[in-house]
Amino acid sequence: MFKEPLQKIVDNVEGGIAGLVMGFDGIPVESYTREGHKMDITTVGMEFSFILTQVRKAAEILEMGHVREVSIKAEKLTIAIRVLNNEYFLALAMSPEGNFGKGRYLMRVVAPKLQEEL
Amino acid sequence: MFKEPLQKIVDNVEGGIAGLVMGFDGIPVESYTREGHKMDITTVGMEFSFILTQVRKAAEILEMGHVREVSIKAEKLTIAIRVLNNEYFLALAMSPEGNFGKGRYLMRVVAPKLQEEL
Repeated sequence: MFKEPLQKIVDNVEGGIAGLVMGFDGIPVESYTREGHKMDITTVGMEFSFILTQVRKAAEILEMGHVREVSIKAEKLTIAIRVLNNEYFLALAMSPEGNFGKGRYLMRVVAPKLQEEL
Repeated sequence: MFKEPLQKIVDNVEGGIAGLVMGFDGIPVESYTREGHKMDITTVGMEFSFILTQVRKAAEILEMGHVREVSIKAEKLTIAIRVLNNEYFLALAMSPEGNFGKGRYLMRVVAPKLQEEL
């Protein structure tokens, strides 16, 4: 149900490693890791689900409106997160040299399909 | 010392509202708000300094290397953050329709000048 859209994102972006749909409580719904990679995307998502909850709280305090996207670029990994609804988010892990713009674009395109099912 | 580079970023990006150099402890070094705007960028920075610290801890646990950039897009505000060194970060607040790519580019260009002084 979610595997196919996740694969569509990950396999179509240069540097795409893994994708995940997860609840803000850190419970994974579905994940996909590109062939040839060994990433524990669920652990990554769990670490960031806590942070995302903090970001949403800060946005509320600051009256920024709903949080739509969060991205983190580190030396060895780029994480792009898109909030799907009040309970779930979509995450994409990319290599630092990956095509970040295309990754974000594909997440935006695929999000409505995921939202329909959640 | 920091005002000029901050102004250079904020005033040269479409939708730029305010810029800030802050310690990860939430203590501001310098801030600049574009004429005609009334943003308390220091309060925004303080909320996100805590989150940035959590992001760095998560990145360490996940062996992602040093965190370079974090961005948050919400309905009413976009925040782009660039880590300057182990103690300080640079933040840019933009309107959601602002030119995010140019904002990130200007932050990258100006960062070395700020790093020299910190």
